[in-house]
Amino acid sequence: MFEPPVQRLIDEFARLPGIGAKSAQRLAFHLLNAEEADARRLADAIIEMRVSVHLCSRCYNVTDREECSICLDLRRDTAVVCVVERVQDIPVIERTQRFRGRYHVLGGAISPIAGIGPEQLRMKELLVRVEVENVEEVIAATNPTLEGDTTAMYVAQLLKPFGVKVSRLASGLPVGGDIDYADEITLGRALAGRTEL
Amino acid sequence: MFEPPVQRLIDEFARLPGIGAKSAQRLAFHLLNAEEADARRLADAIIEMRVSVHLCSRCYNVTDREECSICLDLRRDTAVVCVVERVQDIPVIERTQRFRGRYHVLGGAISPIAGIGPEQLRMKELLVRVEVENVEEVIAATNPTLEGDTTAMYVAQLLKPFGVKVSRLASGLPVGGDIDYADEITLGRALAGRTEL
Repeated sequence: MFEPPVQRLIDEFARLPGIGAKSAQRLAFHLLNAEEADARRLADAIIEMRVSVHLCSRCYNVTDREECSICLDLRRDTAVVCVVERVQDIPVIERTQRFRGRYHVLGGAISPIAGIGPEQLRMKELLVRVEVENVEEVIAATNPTLEGDTTAMYVAQLLKPFGVKVSRLASGLPVGGDIDYADEITLGRALAGRTEL
Repeated sequence: MFEPPVQRLIDEFARLPGIGAKSAQRLAFHLLNAEEADARRLADAIIEMRVSVHLCSRCYNVTDREECSICLDLRRDTAVVCVVERVQDIPVIERTQRFRGRYHVLGGAISPIAGIGPEQLRMKELLVRVEVENVEEVIAATNPTLEGDTTAMYVAQLLKPFGVKVSRLASGLPVGGDIDYADEITLGRALAGRTEL
Protein backbone atom coordinates (compact mmCIF):
# COMPACT_ATOMS: atom_id res chain seq x y z
CA MET A 1 0.00 0.00 0.00
CA PHE A 2 1.24 3.47 -0.90
CA GLU A 3 0.47 6.71 0.86
CA PRO A 4 -3.24 7.63 0.48
CA PRO A 5 -3.13 10.11 -2.46
CA VAL A 6 -1.01 7.71 -4.54
CA GLN A 7 -3.02 4.62 -3.60
CA ARG A 8 -6.26 6.46 -4.38
CA LEU A 9 -5.08 7.21 -7.91
CA ILE A 10 -3.88 3.63 -8.39
CA ASP A 11 -7.31 2.38 -7.25
CA GLU A 12 -9.10 4.72 -9.66
CA PHE A 13 -6.96 3.57 -12.59
CA ALA A 14 -7.53 -0.06 -11.62
CA ARG A 15 -11.31 0.48 -11.94
CA LEU A 16 -10.93 1.20 -15.65
CA PRO A 17 -11.53 -1.66 -18.10
CA GLY A 18 -8.43 -3.61 -19.12
CA ILE A 19 -6.21 -1.94 -16.50
CA GLY A 20 -4.85 -4.42 -13.95
CA ALA A 21 -3.20 -3.68 -10.62
CA LYS A 22 0.31 -3.49 -12.10
CA SER A 23 -0.72 -1.23 -14.98
CA ALA A 24 -2.63 1.04 -12.61
CA GLN A 25 0.51 1.41 -10.51
CA ARG A 26 2.65 2.13 -13.57
CA LEU A 27 0.19 4.78 -14.78
CA ALA A 28 0.03 6.48 -11.37
CA PHE A 29 3.81 6.64 -11.10
CA HIS A 30 4.07 7.85 -14.66
CA LEU A 31 1.81 10.78 -13.80
CA LEU A 32 3.69 11.36 -10.57
CA ASN A 33 6.95 11.71 -12.46
CA ALA A 34 5.49 13.45 -15.53
CA GLU A 35 5.38 17.19 -16.04
CA GLU A 36 2.73 18.79 -13.86
CA ALA A 37 1.08 20.18 -17.01
CA ASP A 38 0.82 16.72 -18.58
CA ALA A 39 -0.98 15.27 -15.57
CA ARG A 40 -3.26 18.26 -15.38
CA ARG A 41 -4.14 18.00 -19.09
CA LEU A 42 -5.40 14.45 -18.60
CA ALA A 43 -7.53 15.47 -15.61
CA ASP A 44 -8.88 18.47 -17.50
CA ALA A 45 -9.66 16.36 -20.58
CA ILE A 46 -11.75 13.99 -18.44
CA ILE A 47 -13.74 16.80 -16.84
CA GLU A 48 -14.06 18.74 -20.10
CA MET A 49 -15.41 15.67 -21.88
CA ARG A 50 -17.95 14.95 -19.17
CA VAL A 51 -19.12 18.54 -19.06
CA SER A 52 -19.38 19.22 -22.79
CA VAL A 53 -20.11 15.93 -24.52
CA HIS A 54 -23.55 14.48 -25.11
CA LEU A 55 -25.28 12.69 -27.98
CA CYS A 56 -26.12 14.33 -31.31
CA SER A 57 -29.87 14.99 -31.34
CA ARG A 58 -30.10 13.57 -34.85
CA CYS A 59 -27.76 10.59 -35.19
CA TYR A 60 -26.63 9.89 -31.57
CA ASN A 61 -22.95 10.34 -32.35
CA VAL A 62 -21.06 12.08 -29.53
CA THR A 63 -20.76 15.84 -29.87
CA ASP A 64 -20.29 19.02 -27.88
CA ARG A 65 -22.91 20.87 -29.93
CA GLU A 66 -26.63 20.27 -30.56
CA GLU A 67 -25.78 18.18 -33.64
CA CYS A 68 -22.50 16.46 -34.51
CA SER A 69 -20.15 17.83 -37.16
CA ILE A 70 -21.19 15.14 -39.64
CA CYS A 71 -24.90 16.00 -39.37
CA LEU A 72 -24.05 19.71 -39.61
CA ASP A 73 -21.91 19.20 -42.72
CA LEU A 74 -24.02 20.54 -45.61
CA ARG A 75 -21.94 18.62 -48.17
CA ARG A 76 -23.07 15.26 -46.79
CA ASP A 77 -25.75 13.33 -48.67
CA THR A 78 -28.84 13.31 -46.45
CA ALA A 79 -30.54 10.62 -48.53
CA VAL A 80 -28.17 7.87 -47.35
CA VAL A 81 -27.93 6.79 -43.72
CA CYS A 82 -25.36 4.34 -42.41
CA VAL A 83 -26.65 2.46 -39.37
CA VAL A 84 -23.94 1.45 -36.89
CA GLU A 85 -24.03 -0.28 -33.52
CA ARG A 86 -21.76 2.08 -31.62
CA VAL A 87 -20.34 5.60 -31.81
CA GLN A 88 -16.85 4.09 -32.10
CA ASP A 89 -17.77 2.59 -35.47
CA ILE A 90 -18.23 6.00 -37.11
CA PRO A 91 -14.56 7.07 -37.39
CA VAL A 92 -13.65 3.64 -38.76
CA ILE A 93 -16.10 4.11 -41.65
CA GLU A 94 -15.11 7.78 -42.03
CA ARG A 95 -11.48 6.74 -42.52
CA THR A 96 -12.41 4.80 -45.67
CA GLN A 97 -13.47 8.14 -47.26
CA ARG A 98 -16.00 6.11 -49.24
CA PHE A 99 -19.15 7.16 -47.43
CA ARG A 100 -20.60 10.66 -47.76
CA GLY A 101 -23.99 10.21 -46.12
CA ARG A 102 -25.00 10.51 -42.49
CA TYR A 103 -25.02 8.01 -39.64
CA HIS A 104 -27.45 6.57 -37.15
CA VAL A 105 -26.10 5.01 -33.95
CA LEU A 106 -28.37 2.23 -32.68
CA GLY A 107 -26.61 1.90 -29.35
CA GLY A 108 -25.94 -1.84 -29.68
CA ALA A 109 -27.27 -4.90 -31.48
CA ILE A 110 -30.19 -7.24 -30.92
CA SER A 111 -29.07 -10.00 -28.58
CA PRO A 112 -31.68 -12.25 -26.95
CA ILE A 113 -28.96 -13.76 -24.72
CA ALA A 114 -28.02 -10.33 -23.34
CA GLY A 115 -31.70 -9.40 -23.15
CA ILE A 116 -31.38 -6.66 -25.76
CA GLY A 117 -34.37 -6.36 -28.06
CA PRO A 118 -35.16 -3.76 -30.75
CA GLU A 119 -36.94 -1.61 -28.14
CA GLN A 120 -33.63 -1.12 -26.29
CA LEU A 121 -32.07 0.23 -29.50
CA ARG A 122 -32.77 3.46 -31.38
CA MET A 123 -35.03 1.81 -33.97
CA LYS A 124 -38.00 4.15 -33.50
CA GLU A 125 -35.68 7.13 -33.92
CA LEU A 126 -34.36 5.57 -37.15
CA LEU A 127 -37.88 5.11 -38.45
CA VAL A 128 -38.74 8.75 -37.72
CA ARG A 129 -35.59 9.92 -39.51
CA VAL A 130 -36.34 7.81 -42.58
CA GLU A 131 -39.72 9.46 -42.86
CA VAL A 132 -38.78 13.04 -41.96
CA GLU A 133 -35.43 13.23 -43.79
CA ASN A 134 -36.57 11.53 -47.02
CA VAL A 135 -33.93 8.84 -46.69
CA GLU A 136 -33.56 6.69 -49.80
CA GLU A 137 -30.98 4.15 -48.70
CA VAL A 138 -30.02 2.72 -45.33
CA ILE A 139 -26.72 0.83 -45.09
CA ALA A 140 -26.76 -1.64 -42.19
CA ALA A 141 -23.13 -1.45 -41.04
CA THR A 142 -23.66 -3.60 -37.97
CA ASN A 143 -20.94 -6.13 -37.08
CA PRO A 144 -20.71 -9.34 -39.15
CA THR A 145 -21.78 -11.38 -36.11
CA LEU A 146 -24.94 -13.26 -35.21
CA GLU A 147 -26.19 -10.20 -33.30
CA GLY A 148 -25.18 -7.75 -36.03
CA ASP A 149 -26.76 -9.88 -38.77
CA THR A 150 -29.99 -10.19 -36.76
CA THR A 151 -30.05 -6.42 -36.24
CA ALA A 152 -29.47 -5.77 -39.95
CA MET A 153 -32.34 -8.14 -40.83
CA TYR A 154 -34.59 -6.34 -38.36
CA VAL A 155 -33.70 -2.94 -39.84
CA ALA A 156 -34.47 -4.27 -43.32
CA GLN A 157 -37.88 -5.61 -42.28
CA LEU A 158 -38.65 -2.42 -40.37
CA LEU A 159 -37.89 -0.10 -43.29
CA LYS A 160 -38.95 -2.11 -46.33
CA PRO A 161 -42.65 -1.03 -46.02
CA PHE A 162 -41.51 2.57 -46.45
CA GLY A 163 -39.93 1.89 -49.83
CA VAL A 164 -36.41 2.59 -48.61
CA LYS A 165 -33.51 0.52 -49.95
CA VAL A 166 -31.68 -1.34 -47.18
CA SER A 167 -28.20 -2.72 -47.92
CA ARG A 168 -25.62 -4.59 -45.86
CA LEU A 169 -21.81 -4.33 -45.85
CA ALA A 170 -20.26 -7.12 -47.93
CA SER A 171 -18.75 -10.07 -46.09
CA GLY A 172 -15.70 -11.75 -47.58
CA LEU A 173 -11.95 -12.08 -47.42
CA PRO A 174 -10.12 -9.18 -45.79
CA VAL A 175 -7.77 -7.42 -48.24
CA GLY A 176 -4.23 -8.68 -47.75
CA GLY A 177 -5.58 -11.82 -46.11
CA ASP A 178 -4.70 -15.39 -46.95
CA ILE A 179 -7.34 -17.89 -48.17
CA ASP A 180 -5.47 -20.56 -46.21
CA TYR A 181 -6.34 -18.80 -42.99
CA ALA A 182 -9.94 -17.83 -43.79
CA ASP A 183 -12.63 -19.54 -41.71
CA GLU A 184 -15.34 -21.51 -43.55
CA ILE A 185 -18.12 -19.03 -42.87
CA THR A 186 -16.16 -16.05 -44.18
CA LEU A 187 -15.00 -18.05 -47.21
CA GLY A 188 -18.56 -19.27 -47.77
CA ARG A 189 -19.80 -15.68 -47.81
CA ALA A 190 -16.95 -14.63 -50.11
CA LEU A 191 -18.05 -17.34 -52.56
CA ALA A 192 -21.74 -16.43 -52.32
CA GLY A 193 -20.92 -12.75 -52.88
CA ARG A 194 -18.39 -13.30 -55.68
CA THR A 195 -18.23 -10.53 -58.29
CA GLU A 196 -17.69 -10.93 -62.00
CA LEU A 197 -14.40 -9.64 -63.43
CA MET B 1 -11.52 11.28 -35.58
CA PHE B 2 -14.13 12.02 -32.95
CA GLU B 3 -15.50 15.39 -31.90
CA PRO B 4 -12.78 17.52 -30.22
CA PRO B 5 -13.49 16.89 -26.50
CA VAL B 6 -13.64 13.13 -27.01
CA GLN B 7 -10.60 13.03 -29.30
CA ARG B 8 -8.64 15.16 -26.83
CA LEU B 9 -9.26 12.67 -24.03
CA ILE B 10 -8.37 9.74 -26.31
CA ASP B 11 -5.10 11.52 -27.22
CA GLU B 12 -4.27 12.15 -23.56
CA PHE B 13 -4.86 8.50 -22.65
CA ALA B 14 -2.75 7.39 -25.62
CA ARG B 15 0.18 9.38 -24.24
CA LEU B 16 0.30 7.15 -21.16
CA PRO B 17 2.77 4.24 -21.15
CA GLY B 18 1.38 0.91 -22.36
CA ILE B 19 -1.87 2.46 -23.63
CA GLY B 20 -2.31 2.05 -27.38
CA ALA B 21 -4.77 3.84 -29.66
CA LYS B 22 -7.49 1.20 -29.21
CA SER B 23 -7.16 1.07 -25.42
CA ALA B 24 -7.20 4.87 -25.23
CA GLN B 25 -10.47 4.89 -27.17
CA ARG B 26 -11.97 2.19 -24.95
CA LEU B 27 -10.99 4.12 -21.81
CA ALA B 28 -12.43 7.39 -23.12
CA PHE B 29 -15.74 5.77 -24.03
CA HIS B 30 -15.82 3.96 -20.71
CA LEU B 31 -15.57 7.32 -18.91
CA LEU B 32 -18.14 8.81 -21.27
CA ASN B 33 -20.65 6.13 -20.36
CA ALA B 34 -19.65 5.83 -16.69
CA GLU B 35 -21.32 7.64 -13.82
CA GLU B 36 -20.37 11.31 -13.79
CA ALA B 37 -19.03 10.83 -10.24
CA ASP B 38 -16.71 7.99 -11.33
CA ALA B 39 -15.14 10.06 -14.08
CA ARG B 40 -14.78 13.01 -11.75
CA ARG B 41 -13.12 10.87 -9.06
CA LEU B 42 -10.37 9.84 -11.47
CA ALA B 43 -9.73 13.44 -12.51
CA ASP B 44 -9.71 14.57 -8.88
CA ALA B 45 -7.34 11.77 -7.87
CA ILE B 46 -4.85 12.89 -10.54
CA ILE B 47 -4.95 16.54 -9.42
CA GLU B 48 -4.95 15.63 -5.72
CA MET B 49 -1.90 13.42 -6.16
CA ARG B 50 0.01 16.08 -8.06
CA VAL B 51 -0.86 18.76 -5.52
CA SER B 52 -0.17 16.83 -2.34
CA VAL B 53 2.46 14.21 -3.11
CA HIS B 54 6.21 14.75 -2.93
CA LEU B 55 9.17 12.74 -1.70
CA CYS B 56 9.80 11.90 1.96
CA SER B 57 12.62 14.12 3.19
CA ARG B 58 14.30 11.12 4.82
CA CYS B 59 13.89 8.06 2.60
CA TYR B 60 12.51 9.48 -0.69
CA ASN B 61 9.37 7.36 -0.59
CA VAL B 62 6.28 9.25 -1.86
CA THR B 63 4.22 10.95 0.81
CA ASP B 64 1.79 13.81 1.39
CA ARG B 65 3.54 14.82 4.62
CA GLU B 66 7.08 15.93 5.46
CA GLU B 67 8.11 12.32 6.09
CA CYS B 68 6.39 9.13 4.92
CA SER B 69 4.32 6.96 7.24
CA ILE B 70 7.10 4.35 7.47
CA CYS B 71 9.72 6.87 8.59
CA LEU B 72 7.21 8.37 11.06
CA ASP B 73 6.34 4.95 12.51
CA LEU B 74 8.08 4.84 15.90
CA ARG B 75 7.85 1.04 16.06
CA ARG B 76 10.20 0.66 13.08
CA ASP B 77 13.81 -0.31 13.69
CA THR B 78 15.93 2.70 12.71
CA ALA B 79 19.16 0.69 12.76
CA VAL B 80 18.28 -1.26 9.60
CA VAL B 81 17.83 0.41 6.23
CA CYS B 82 16.59 -1.39 3.13
CA VAL B 83 17.95 0.22 -0.03
CA VAL B 84 15.61 -0.07 -3.04
CA GLU B 85 15.81 1.22 -6.60
CA ARG B 86 12.32 2.62 -6.85
CA VAL B 87 9.40 3.75 -4.67
CA GLN B 88 7.31 0.96 -6.18
CA ASP B 89 9.59 -1.65 -4.57
CA ILE B 90 8.62 -0.57 -1.03
CA PRO B 91 5.08 -2.01 -0.88
CA VAL B 92 6.35 -5.29 -2.35
CA ILE B 93 8.78 -5.69 0.55
CA GLU B 94 6.20 -4.43 3.04
CA ARG B 95 3.80 -7.14 1.95
CA THR B 96 6.23 -9.85 3.13
CA GLN B 97 5.81 -8.47 6.70
CA ARG B 98 9.37 -9.65 7.31
CA PHE B 99 11.09 -6.28 7.35
CA ARG B 100 10.62 -3.81 10.18
CA GLY B 101 13.34 -1.27 9.42
CA ARG B 102 13.23 1.81 7.23
CA TYR B 103 13.86 2.31 3.52
CA HIS B 104 16.07 4.38 1.27
CA VAL B 105 15.01 4.94 -2.35
CA LEU B 106 18.02 5.37 -4.63
CA GLY B 107 15.98 6.48 -7.60
CA GLY B 108 17.36 3.86 -9.99
CA ALA B 109 20.38 1.62 -10.48
CA ILE B 110 23.89 2.18 -11.81
CA SER B 111 23.83 1.62 -15.57
CA PRO B 112 26.78 2.74 -17.69
CA ILE B 113 24.77 2.00 -20.85
CA ALA B 114 21.96 4.35 -19.77
CA GLY B 115 24.54 6.86 -18.53
CA ILE B 116 23.46 6.51 -14.88
CA GLY B 117 26.33 6.67 -12.42
CA PRO B 118 26.31 6.77 -8.60
CA GLU B 119 26.14 10.55 -8.66
CA GLN B 120 22.71 10.37 -10.36
CA LEU B 121 21.41 8.23 -7.49
CA ARG B 122 20.81 9.14 -3.84
CA MET B 123 24.11 7.66 -2.60
CA LYS B 124 25.35 10.76 -0.79
CA GLU B 125 22.00 10.98 1.01
CA LEU B 126 22.37 7.32 2.02
CA LEU B 127 25.85 7.98 3.38
CA VAL B 128 24.59 10.92 5.44
CA ARG B 129 21.77 8.82 6.86
CA VAL B 130 24.12 5.98 7.81
CA GLU B 131 26.22 8.45 9.79
CA VAL B 132 23.43 10.53 11.33
CA GLU B 133 20.94 7.75 12.08
CA ASN B 134 23.44 5.25 13.51
CA VAL B 135 22.49 2.63 10.95
CA GLU B 136 23.95 -0.81 11.68
CA GLU B 137 22.80 -2.81 8.68
CA VAL B 138 21.96 -1.87 5.12
CA ILE B 139 20.09 -4.43 3.01
CA ALA B 140 20.72 -3.89 -0.69
CA ALA B 141 17.31 -4.84 -2.15
CA THR B 142 18.14 -3.75 -5.67
CA ASN B 143 16.94 -5.94 -8.56
CA PRO B 144 18.81 -9.21 -9.25
CA THR B 145 20.04 -7.81 -12.57
CA LEU B 146 23.43 -6.68 -13.79
CA GLU B 147 22.54 -3.08 -12.88
CA GLY B 148 21.07 -4.02 -9.51
CA ASP B 149 24.07 -6.19 -8.63
CA THR B 150 26.50 -3.41 -9.61
CA THR B 151 24.55 -0.95 -7.48
CA ALA B 152 24.57 -3.31 -4.50
CA MET B 153 28.33 -3.76 -4.84
CA TYR B 154 28.78 0.00 -4.97
CA VAL B 155 26.67 0.49 -1.83
CA ALA B 156 28.76 -2.17 -0.03
CA GLN B 157 32.06 -0.51 -0.98
CA LEU B 158 30.68 2.91 -0.07
CA LEU B 159 29.52 1.90 3.41
CA LYS B 160 32.10 -0.69 4.47
CA PRO B 161 34.59 1.98 5.72
CA PHE B 162 31.92 3.13 8.18
CA GLY B 163 31.69 -0.28 9.82
CA VAL B 164 28.11 -0.86 8.68
CA LYS B 165 27.01 -4.36 7.68
CA VAL B 166 25.79 -4.50 4.08
CA SER B 167 23.72 -7.52 2.99
CA ARG B 168 22.04 -8.51 -0.24
CA LEU B 169 18.72 -10.28 -0.89
CA ALA B 170 19.27 -13.99 -1.57
CA SER B 171 19.09 -15.17 -5.15
CA GLY B 172 17.70 -18.62 -5.83
CA LEU B 173 14.70 -20.60 -6.94
CA PRO B 174 11.33 -18.87 -6.56
CA VAL B 175 9.05 -20.70 -4.12
CA GLY B 176 6.61 -22.87 -6.03
CA GLY B 177 8.93 -22.83 -9.04
CA ASP B 178 10.18 -25.82 -10.99
CA ILE B 179 13.90 -26.69 -11.23
CA ASP B 180 13.23 -27.82 -14.79
CA TYR B 181 12.36 -24.28 -15.77
CA ALA B 182 15.07 -22.44 -13.82
CA ASP B 183 17.70 -20.63 -15.89
CA GLU B 184 21.36 -21.57 -15.33
CA ILE B 185 22.30 -18.33 -13.58
CA THR B 186 19.47 -18.56 -11.05
CA LEU B 187 20.18 -22.24 -10.47
CA GLY B 188 23.89 -21.49 -10.12
CA ARG B 189 23.16 -18.90 -7.46
CA ALA B 190 20.76 -21.26 -5.70
CA LEU B 191 23.59 -23.83 -5.54
CA ALA B 192 26.16 -21.32 -4.34
CA GLY B 193 23.79 -20.05 -1.69
CA ARG B 194 22.57 -23.49 -0.53
CA THR B 195 21.65 -23.73 3.14
CA GLU B 196 22.28 -26.71 5.42
CA LEU B 197 19.21 -28.60 6.65
